Amino acid sequence: MTSQKEPQEGHSTSTKVTGPSSWSKVSCPCCTSTQIEPLVLIQLAESVQPITKQWIMSVIAAPVKAGGAQLLVHPGEDMKGDMIVVAAPRCTLHRVTEELGLCKTYQDGDMKAFSFEDRDNFCNIDDTQQFLTLAERQFIVKHEMDLMKALEDQRIPGIPAPAGKLKARESILQKLEKAGLIRSITPLHDQERLADLGKQWYSQKSLWGQPLDYIHNYFGGTIAYYFSFLDFYTLSLFPPAILGIFITFFLPSANFSTAIETDSNASSKISDDDHLSVSSYMVQAVFSMLWSTIFMELWKRRSASLSYHWGTFNLAEQFQEPRPGFHGEIGTNPVTGRLEPLFPDWKRKMRMGLVSVPVVGFFLGLVILGMAGFYICERLVSSWHKESGSYFTAPLLYLPSIAHIVYTNVLGNVYRNVALKLTEAENHREESSFDYHHTTKVLVFTFFNNFAVLFHIAFFKEDMPLLRKRLSSLLIVTQVVGQFTEVVVPFLVDRFLTSANRNLKEDDPEVDHLQAQGSLPAFPGLFAEYIELLVQFGYLSLFSCVYPLTAPLLLLNNLTEIRTDAYKLCKLFNKPFSAPVANLGVWQLAFEVLSFISVISNCWLLLLSPRVKEWTQEAGLSSSQVIVIAVIVEHVLLIVKMILAFIIPDEPDWLQVKREQIEYNSMQALKKQRIKSTRVDGKLQKAKMGE
Amino acid sequence: MTSQKEPQEGHSTSTKVTGPSSWSKVSCPCCTSTQIEPLVLIQLAESVQPITKQWIMSVIAAPVKAGGAQLLVHPGEDMKGDMIVVAAPRCTLHRVTEELGLCKTYQDGDMKAFSFEDRDNFCNIDDTQQFLTLAERQFIVKHEMDLMKALEDQRIPGIPAPAGKLKARESILQKLEKAGLIRSITPLHDQERLADLGKQWYSQKSLWGQPLDYIHNYFGGTIAYYFSFLDFYTLSLFPPAILGIFITFFLPSANFSTAIETDSNASSKISDDDHLSVSSYMVQAVFSMLWSTIFMELWKRRSASLSYHWGTFNLAEQFQEPRPGFHGEIGTNPVTGRLEPLFPDWKRKMRMGLVSVPVVGFFLGLVILGMAGFYICERLVSSWHKESGSYFTAPLLYLPSIAHIVYTNVLGNVYRNVALKLTEAENHREESSFDYHHTTKVLVFTFFNNFAVLFHIAFFKEDMPLLRKRLSSLLIVTQVVGQFTEVVVPFLVDRFLTSANRNLKEDDPEVDHLQAQGSLPAFPGLFAEYIELLVQFGYLSLFSCVYPLTAPLLLLNNLTEIRTDAYKLCKLFNKPFSAPVANLGVWQLAFEVLSFISVISNCWLLLLSPRVKEWTQEAGLSSSQVIVIAVIVEHVLLIVKMILAFIIPDEPDWLQVKREQIEYNSMQALKKQRIKSTRVDGKLQKAKMGE
Repeated sequence: MTSQKEPQEGHSTSTKVTGPSSWSKVSCPCCTSTQIEPLVLIQLAESVQPITKQWIMSVIAAPVKAGGAQLLVHPGEDMKGDMIVVAAPRCTLHRVTEELGLCKTYQDGDMKAFSFEDRDNFCNIDDTQQFLTLAERQFIVKHEMDLMKALEDQRIPGIPAPAGKLKARESILQKLEKAGLIRSITPLHDQERLADLGKQWYSQKSLWGQPLDYIHNYFGGTIAYYFSFLDFYTLSLFPPAILGIFITFFLPSANFSTAIETDSNASSKISDDDHLSVSSYMVQAVFSMLWSTIFMELWKRRSASLSYHWGTFNLAEQFQEPRPGFHGEIGTNPVTGRLEPLFPDWKRKMRMGLVSVPVVGFFLGLVILGMAGFYICERLVSSWHKESGSYFTAPLLYLPSIAHIVYTNVLGNVYRNVALKLTEAENHREESSFDYHHTTKVLVFTFFNNFAVLFHIAFFKEDMPLLRKRLSSLLIVTQVVGQFTEVVVPFLVDRFLTSANRNLKEDDPEVDHLQAQGSLPAFPGLFAEYIELLVQFGYLSLFSCVYPLTAPLLLLNNLTEIRTDAYKLCKLFNKPFSAPVANLGVWQLAFEVLSFISVISNCWLLLLSPRVKEWTQEAGLSSSQVIVIAVIVEHVLLIVKMILAFIIPDEPDWLQVKREQIEYNSMQALKKQRIKSTRVDGKLQKAKMGE
Repeated sequence: MTSQKEPQEGHSTSTKVTGPSSWSKVSCPCCTSTQIEPLVLIQLAESVQPITKQWIMSVIAAPVKAGGAQLLVHPGEDMKGDMIVVAAPRCTLHRVTEELGLCKTYQDGDMKAFSFEDRDNFCNIDDTQQFLTLAERQFIVKHEMDLMKALEDQRIPGIPAPAGKLKARESILQKLEKAGLIRSITPLHDQERLADLGKQWYSQKSLWGQPLDYIHNYFGGTIAYYFSFLDFYTLSLFPPAILGIFITFFLPSANFSTAIETDSNASSKISDDDHLSVSSYMVQAVFSMLWSTIFMELWKRRSASLSYHWGTFNLAEQFQEPRPGFHGEIGTNPVTGRLEPLFPDWKRKMRMGLVSVPVVGFFLGLVILGMAGFYICERLVSSWHKESGSYFTAPLLYLPSIAHIVYTNVLGNVYRNVALKLTEAENHREESSFDYHHTTKVLVFTFFNNFAVLFHIAFFKEDMPLLRKRLSSLLIVTQVVGQFTEVVVPFLVDRFLTSANRNLKEDDPEVDHLQAQGSLPAFPGLFAEYIELLVQFGYLSLFSCVYPLTAPLLLLNNLTEIRTDAYKLCKLFNKPFSAPVANLGVWQLAFEVLSFISVISNCWLLLLSPRVKEWTQEAGLSSSQVIVIAVIVEHVLLIVKMILAFIIPDEPDWLQVKREQIEYNSMQALKKQRIKSTRVDGKLQKAKMGE
C-alpha cells in the first residue's frame, strides 16, 4: 500500500474535459467541484443523430427515481461527435458504494461496510480519489448505467419504431447495445498512473512480486484476483519443480532413463533399479496429491485475507438490485422489501435440471463421438493405405486429423452460443451467479476437450510411453507457441500497428486522447487465462508422475506469463471493467475438483506403470489383488485429503474473529433497533389516540 | 400445538411450596408474585450441615454480580432436610432467555431473538408459563447455577479446609459436586401434565404420530430432537421395508432361496434364476444408497424447520459465557468484549492432533488386536481339541470367546474414561463443542466394535452366507433382547419395585412428593439410544442387500421403540435437563458418514456375492475387469450421491428467506447503530469541550 504514489487526476494542461463547464449539472449542491474526473467513455455508432445522443445523455444525467443513472455527462468535442464522456458526482459514488456493500476503513482502523448516513466516520471520505479506487469508481459508473430503466413505454428519439421502442422496466443500456447504437463502453486510462504501474509491474528487473494493491486500485477486483492467484500459484510451483528436477536428474535410473528407452521399446533394459523407480513414481504421486490439497487450502486463506484487505468480504449481491437481464413478475422482494422482478427458484432449477444438464451432456457425447470417429477413421485409412499404398493415398492419412480438428472447432463454437443461451434461459438474479453457471458450462466442455485424449491414452490404451510423449510435447509446444503469440506478436503489434496512438502529444486536444483509447480491441476477459492455468494445473496434478519435468516447465512458463499478461492488459487492449469480488468464484471450485480427480488419476496411473506391474508380478500378487490394493490406497488417500482440507481452516484466525465481531454486533444492533422502531410506533399511536 | 392443554401449575391444595412465603426474597419489585413455581430439586448429601445448606442457598439467591444465580430458593421441609427447591424470578428467566439467544414469537408473528429491553413486544410475555416452556425454565435454572462463581478465594462454611476451599473464579456447583455435597440436581415433574403427555404419547391406540411440540415443551430440546428423528426415521423405513418384503416374498427365486440353501451349501442348486437374483441384489444396493442420501437430506430440512419452530435457530454459543469446566488466562473476549478465560485455538488443535488422535488410534488398534487374537486363539484351541480331543478340552473351546468378551468390556470401560479425560484436556469453550468431541471419540470406538466383525466377515472371509446368518441373528436377537429389557423389565420394575412412590396420595405433604421424584435413577442420556439407531442404520444401509428383511424388522422394532423410550423417560427415570438445540449435533454427521460408507460397502458386497461372480464368469470377464467395473460404478454412485446432496437444499425455501431477512435487517441495523453511537460520542466530546 505504501509504495503506491497516487498522481492527481490527469493532465493539468487539459482543462477542457476535467473542468466543470459544459458538463451536465448535478441536482445536489454538495457535489459541485472545480475538477471533474472523466471516468468512462461511451462510443456511439456513427449513424447516431444528435437528437438521440442528447436523449442518451439526458437519461444518464437523470436522477435514479426517473430511471436514470444520476451521473455527469460531457458531449466530448461537440454534440455531433460520436462519444459521450461520463463522470460521477460524489453522492452517487457514495450511495452505490453502500448498495454494493463495499467495506472501507472506518475511523477505528477496521474495515466496515460503508454507510452513507455514517460517511463522516470513514477515513478519506472527503477525497473521493483516495476513498474509492479508480476501478471502483469506474465500476460504479457502469453499474449505475446498467440499471437505467424505462419507467413507462416510450420511444428513443431519432430511431424508427421497432428498434426505438422501449417497454416499461426495460433496461435502456441493453436496448441501446442491442439496437447497435453503442459501439463500446470503456473505462478511461489514467496515463500517468498506468505508466507508473507498468514500471512496477512488468518492466522491473526483479523476478518476484507484483504490485497487487496497485493492480487492485487501478484495474479492480476480478483482475487483481487473477494476478494474485497467478502469483500464489507460481510461488507454490517451487516445491514440485524442485522435486521434479531431483527425480529426473539425480535419480537417473528412474523415469528419465525410461523416457529415453521407451522409443526403442527396450523392455529388456528394465532391470535392477525397479524398486527405486517404483518409489520415485510413488513419491511423485503422493506428493502431488498432498501438494494440490495444501495449495488449494492455503490459497483459500490468502483469498479470504485479500477480500478483507480489499473491502469485499461483505458483498451481498442478493440484497442488491437484480442484474439487467433478469426478468420475472414484478413483486415485493421478501428480504429487502423492494419492488422488483421475482422468479421462483424451483423454476430455475427445473430449467437447469431438465434442459441445461441434458443439453450439456449431449454435447459432451458429441465430443466422445468425435474422438471415437477419429480413431476409427484413422485405423480405416491407415489399413487402406497399407493395402493399396501409393503416393496418392498418403495425403489421405492426414484426413482424419483434419476432419477431427474442424469438427472440434465447429462444435466448440456452436457450444459457446448454446451455453450462453442456456444460461440466459436459467434467468439468474445475480451477475455472479450468471457468470458462475455460464463459466461452469464452458469449463466442463473445454476441460473435456483438453483431457479426453490424455485420459483415453492413459486408461484405455494404457500406453504410458505415449502418454509421456504426448504430455511433454503438449507442454513444450504449447509453451513455445503460447510464449510466441503472447510475447512476440503483441510486442510487434504494439510497436508497429498501434503506433498511431503514440504519436499523440501531450498538448493535443484531450478529446483525441480519449478517442485514441476507444480504438484498441476490447479485452477478451480472463476466461482463456484461467483455462490455461487450469489445464496446466491438470497436467501437473493428474499426470505429472509420468513426466516429472512438468512442474519446472510450468514454473518457467508462469514467470513469463505474469509479465506478458500484465503487458497485454496495460498496452494492447482497452481497459476492462472489473467488479469487486471476494474470491475466484467458480474457478476455485474447478481447481478443487481437479485436485480431487488428481488423487484418483494418480492412483491408477501408478497401477498402470509398467514397473509397478513387473514389481507386483515379482511379489506374486494376482492382478485383481493388485487392483484391490490400489482401491484401498485410493480411498485412504481421498480420506486423508478430506481430513487435510477439513483441518486447515479456510480463514486465518484474525479474520474469523473479525467476522464474529460483525455478527455479534449486528445481532445486538438488530435488537436495539427493534426497540427504537417500536417505541416510535408507540409514540405515533399515542399521538393518534391523543387526537 | 393446538392439541396441548397446559394445566395451570401443580396442585391447588398444596400451597406450602408454591406460595411465596418461606421463599427467599427477590431483589427486583417486578417479580413479586402470589404463586411461585418450583422448578428444580437439589438433593444434598445427608452429611451436609445446616450452615453449609444455608450458605449454598444464599449463593443461589445472590445476584449474578456477586457470583450467584439470582434464583429463588426454598429449604424444603426445614433447614435440616437434605433438599433445596429452586425457582426462578421472571426477570432472571427473561435475562437468560436473551443470553441464550432463544427466539420467541414477536408481535408480528415471526420468531425473533428475544431481547430483554424489547420484551413488551413479544407474545405472552406476561405469562411466563406460556412464554417459556417448562423445559426451558428448568434449563435456565440449571444454566445459571452452573455459572455460579466464587469472586475471590473463600471457604465453604461447615466443610474442612481441603474440600472447602474455593479459589477465585472457580465454579461453585462443580466444586460442590466434586466434594460430594450434592447428590443430584433434578428438574421437577408436573404430574398432571406428565399424565396428559403420557396419554397422548405412549398410551394412545393409534400407531402414528407423537406429540412432538408437547415433548419439546415438557422435556426440552435434545430429547424432542431425538424423538423427532426417531419419528422421521421410522416413517422413512417404509419404502425400504416394502422393497425388502417384495424382494423376499415375491421374487422367491432370489435371495430368500439362497438364505435357505446356504446352510446345506447347495451351490449346485444355483441355476437358472441368476439374472433375476443379480438384479434384485443390484436394485437393493442402489436403492439403499439413494434412500440413505435422500433420507439424510430431507431430515436436514425437517431439522431446520423444527429449529425455527422451536426458536433455536439463532443460538450462538460462542457469544455466551464459556462452559464451567473451561479454563484459561483471563482476558477480554475480542468478540463480545467481556472479561473471561481465553484459550488459544491452536493449542486446542495441537492437543487434539498430537494427543487425542494418536490415543484413539491406539485403542482402535487394540480392538483389532483383540479380534485377531480371538481368531488365532480359536483356531489354535480347535485344532488342539481336534488332535487331542477329550471331554476335558471341550470347555476350552469357549475360552477364546469368553476371553474376547472380557477383553472387549474392559477395553470399553477404560476407553470411556480415557475419552472423557482427553476431551476435558482439549478444553473446549462451548458445551456443544465438548459434547461433539466427546461423543465423536466414544462413537468411533463403539462403531468399530460393532462393525469390525461384520466387515471382517464380508471383506476378508468373503463369506456371504455367514454374513447373512450373522446379520439376521444380530437383528432378531438384538430386537428380542432389546424389547424384553426395554419393555418387560421396565414395566415390571415400575409395577412392583417403584410402587412405593405411587402410594403417595394427593393430600400427602408436597415435600414428600418432591422427595419421591429424587429417588428414581438418573436418566442415562441419549447416547445409547442414538447408538442403537446408528447401528441399525448401519445394518440397513451397509449390509441390507445381503438380507432384505432388515428394513421390515427395523420398522417393527422402531414402532415399539418409540413407545418404550417414551415410557422409560416418563416413568422410570428422573426427568433429565435438556438444552435447547438446533440440530442433532454430531449424530447428524455420524449418520451422514455412514451413508457415505454405505455406497462403498454396497458396491463391494455386490461384487462379492456368489451370483454376481457366476454371472460375470458366464459373461467371460476376468476378475480384474470385474473389479475395475466395480470401481467405476462405485465412483459414479459416489458422485451421484454428492450431486443429490448438493441439489437438495438443506433448508426449506421459506426458512432461507427468513434467514436472509434477519441477515439483511441486522446489516442495516448495524449501520444505523454506528451512526447513533458516533453521534452520542460526538455530543459527549462537544459537551466536554464546552466545559
